[in-house]
Amino acid sequence: MNDKVNLAQKLSSFAQLWSPKVIGELNGQFVKLVKCRGEYPWHSHADEDELFLVLQGQLEIRLRDSSVTLDEGEFFIVPRGVEHSPAAQREAHVLLFEPASTRNTGNVDHEYTIEAENLERI
Amino acid sequence: MNDKVNLAQKLSSFAQLWSPKVIGELNGQFVKLVKCRGEYPWHSHADEDELFLVLQGQLEIRLRDSSVTLDEGEFFIVPRGVEHSPAAQREAHVLLFEPASTRNTGNVDHEYTIEAENLERI
Repeated sequence: MNDKVNLAQKLSSFAQLWSPKVIGELNGQFVKLVKCRGEYPWHSHADEDELFLVLQGQLEIRLRDSSVTLDEGEFFIVPRGVEHSPAAQREAHVLLFEPASTRNTGNVDHEYTIEAENLERI
Repeated sequence: MNDKVNLAQKLSSFAQLWSPKVIGELNGQFVKLVKCRGEYPWHSHADEDELFLVLQGQLEIRLRDSSVTLDEGEFFIVPRGVEHSPAAQREAHVLLFEPASTRNTGNVDHEYTIEAENLERI
């Protein structure tokens, strides 16, 4: 049986920005944590909807025709195929729910790209 | 495009105990909120892993051979097929992440049973 997961403990265990870490797996989905600051490249995921839940700070999810600003305790689901670019003026901590197959930069190759099979589990 | 979801606003919109409400859907999975107090019947889900994330209060997830106590900001994944019984001495607020097919009382019929297709979306 797996142990329980404490979000604050997991967040304190890494500092790297825009580098999602896997903290749970169920039903073919991953639960991830990511620390955000600055602008993330525009991209989309052809086959995966992606949930962003802000745990600390503020995250802006820019869409091509609008923008969503998330504060602590708020989430937004980016539907598959929709181009988006997350951005944070100050460091924000975010929980992600998405299929285990999800590539972090989607259809785009970028210095932040980590192939799904290479994601670190913490 | 769906709107963002504020967890506190959603929690303030209902009072009923042990009655999960759907607040998000992605990749065939539901995000739900549930308010817990007292003991929930023992049950299991044959085909679904179930994630419990405590947003407020404390939730005990009793398993047949052990128990997990979750405080705010902690989650636990109950693997499919594993019997469990959540319990809370005082009212606790919990986020669930699980397949849309998940029946709240699993293999057991109970006064708390709500068939998956009848779940309220808030």
